[in-house]
Amino acid sequence: TWVLVSAHRMKRPWAGQVEKPPEEHIPRYDPGNPLCPGNTRANGKLVRSWFPLNSGTFKQVFHTYVFENDFPALQPDAPDPGSDQHPLFQSKAARGVCKVMCFHPWSDVTLPLMKMHEVVKVIDKWAGLVEELGATYPWVQIFENKGAMMGCSNPHPHCQVWASNFLPNEPALSDRCQRSYYQKHGEPMLQQYARQEAERKERVVVESPDWLAVVPYWATWPYQTLLLPRRHVLRITDLTTEEREGLADIMRRLLTKYDNLFEISFPYSMGWHGAPTGPHLKEDNSHWQLHAHYYPPLLRSAMVKKFMVGYEMLAQEQRDLTPEQAAEKLRNLPEEHYKNREN
Amino acid sequence: TWVLVSAHRMKRPWAGQVEKPPEEHIPRYDPGNPLCPGNTRANGKLVRSWFPLNSGTFKQVFHTYVFENDFPALQPDAPDPGSDQHPLFQSKAARGVCKVMCFHPWSDVTLPLMKMHEVVKVIDKWAGLVEELGATYPWVQIFENKGAMMGCSNPHPHCQVWASNFLPNEPALSDRCQRSYYQKHGEPMLQQYARQEAERKERVVVESPDWLAVVPYWATWPYQTLLLPRRHVLRITDLTTEEREGLADIMRRLLTKYDNLFEISFPYSMGWHGAPTGPHLKEDNSHWQLHAHYYPPLLRSAMVKKFMVGYEMLAQEQRDLTPEQAAEKLRNLPEEHYKNREN
Ligand SMILES: O=P(O)(O)O[C@H]1O[C@H](CO)[C@@H](O)[C@H](O)[C@H]1O
Ligand SMILES: O=P(O)(O)O[C@H]1O[C@H](CO)[C@@H](O)[C@H](O)[C@H]1O
Repeated sequence: TWVLVSAHRMKRPWAGQVEKPPEEHIPRYDPGNPLCPGNTRANGKLVRSWFPLNSGTFKQVFHTYVFENDFPALQPDAPDPGSDQHPLFQSKAARGVCKVMCFHPWSDVTLPLMKMHEVVKVIDKWAGLVEELGATYPWVQIFENKGAMMGCSNPHPHCQVWASNFLPNEPALSDRCQRSYYQKHGEPMLQQYARQEAERKERVVVESPDWLAVVPYWATWPYQTLLLPRRHVLRITDLTTEEREGLADIMRRLLTKYDNLFEISFPYSMGWHGAPTGPHLKEDNSHWQLHAHYYPPLLRSAMVKKFMVGYEMLAQEQRDLTPEQAAEKLRNLPEEHYKNREN
Repeated sequence: TWVLVSAHRMKRPWAGQVEKPPEEHIPRYDPGNPLCPGNTRANGKLVRSWFPLNSGTFKQVFHTYVFENDFPALQPDAPDPGSDQHPLFQSKAARGVCKVMCFHPWSDVTLPLMKMHEVVKVIDKWAGLVEELGATYPWVQIFENKGAMMGCSNPHPHCQVWASNFLPNEPALSDRCQRSYYQKHGEPMLQQYARQEAERKERVVVESPDWLAVVPYWATWPYQTLLLPRRHVLRITDLTTEEREGLADIMRRLLTKYDNLFEISFPYSMGWHGAPTGPHLKEDNSHWQLHAHYYPPLLRSAMVKKFMVGYEMLAQEQRDLTPEQAAEKLRNLPEEHYKNREN
């Protein structure tokens, strides 16, 4: 599909809605936050990953902590909606599980502010969940909604993992496109794409021997990025120890640049796409390449979003700066986090 | 494509972002607003549709007023981006025009608060613009972003009209789906759909002899609606005088219900889809049926939106109440506007 690029639109004055910039002063431990160690969740269960000595101090047992979402959109025993003869009124039972994963015992850190070995623990846990849930479910969606602007209702660093008994629309489309490209060109589309971008350089944001982050040629969100390995990797479970360390490093570098762009904890939705699992584990999925999408909502400043409305909803995505302009801006930002800089 | 429906999700508590409800006290005339009669726009030109006698009073010459967008995303002379040999790096020149259309000389009215004959004037002007721009351009997108929450930066009642030298993604998809359904079933998909919904009743919001508004079976936004004629109509230009009056009436009824839902001026993006124009005027477009989409962002209250984030962006649209629940709620609301009710 096409994206309408109108670079000159950034010139128009903005008199529209401004957002509240993200809260910068989050307490490390909040007795009322159901994601903090030792606290109780909506269903009365304790967040146990860290052994609480007393309120505010605790002995860390694990780095990450996973539990069932108390208000899951997908449930293993969802009822069958019944069937209808008419082709325009089709429905099916959607079954699955929804989990929440805390990245760290502290509420006042985010991935770019965490230590390397702590980010590696997050990646290991992601792989562990894909392994576990992907044993039976065809799709395991790992995603992070970061910031109130992205509908995230809790400042504690966390992500979600929703596994389903069906291949959702986006991965199904991704599967079709990668498959047809592979059949035509004999190489995984996203591996060829990464090589091209590494040579062309103009859309590269950060790179390392194993990984590459670019503002993709087809980006719709102003500062959207695509993070992918250079080697042909089907799933997050296939990453070697070195590649996981490399991933922790490039994620911290990318997210530091994001935070430095407007000197706020940068909001976004992100998530992983890899070859489907469950019954698809036995199939040939050579056309797939593991990758993560980052979709940040901001356009002009910490307070002015890109509104994907009217023309975008009804006709076609439209962007107000080119992917090359966005990549250059991000590329030129320092790799030291603004919060770590000496005043 | 599929929509994930998880009706029970409305039960979860909401501690996330709340919006500022829309401003209820808009001055009828604001000397600083570039959409008010007699004022000057960014490019120094005067908004002339209403003849100003002196600031605040003016003789109404026309009801609606159309002018060129001062910061157009599409321009008739956009440069050619040049070509690239690689299949993943394709681009083309996108050309067109962007217009702004004011619905009324006053800033403090909206469509449901306007008089019937004033809404008919808006519909006539829509048809006039499709006639004029559609003579050459293959697609004329009429859309309204209403409310600051939908990126609208000016409270004066207005919409936009973007005409392009290409068929954008959404209408191209709509064209493909309607065409293949027509080939298979021998009847326009949306005409058959309207008949089915009129019989089934559970998703109907408002209806009249000529028109029908439903929360579509495939709705993704909580209170999304689809407005369509019962007769087979290809384009807005084909509506008879009676059908235009009927449309003005049903639009006012639908939008009154929207405003009454949370007793605010309800935000949304809306737009028209009809058979393509320009070179397509000579083709057989019997598979098309004219319709309008309404996409409102709110979910729980005047202040709590549905966030289309994480899972929605990466996997699949997910909704927190069924289309039938949404339709029932809207259907049961009074047809008298809350602002017109006696206190
Ligand atoms: O043209 P406006 O009203 O300034 O801008 C608004 O509508 C456009 C078309 O839907 C969007 O691209 C913009 O993001 C939005 O802010
Ligand atoms: O599950 P949460 O964080 O309460 O909810 C958030 O993420 C979900 C999955 O992307 C969305 O469906 C919700 O609209 C959003 O508010």
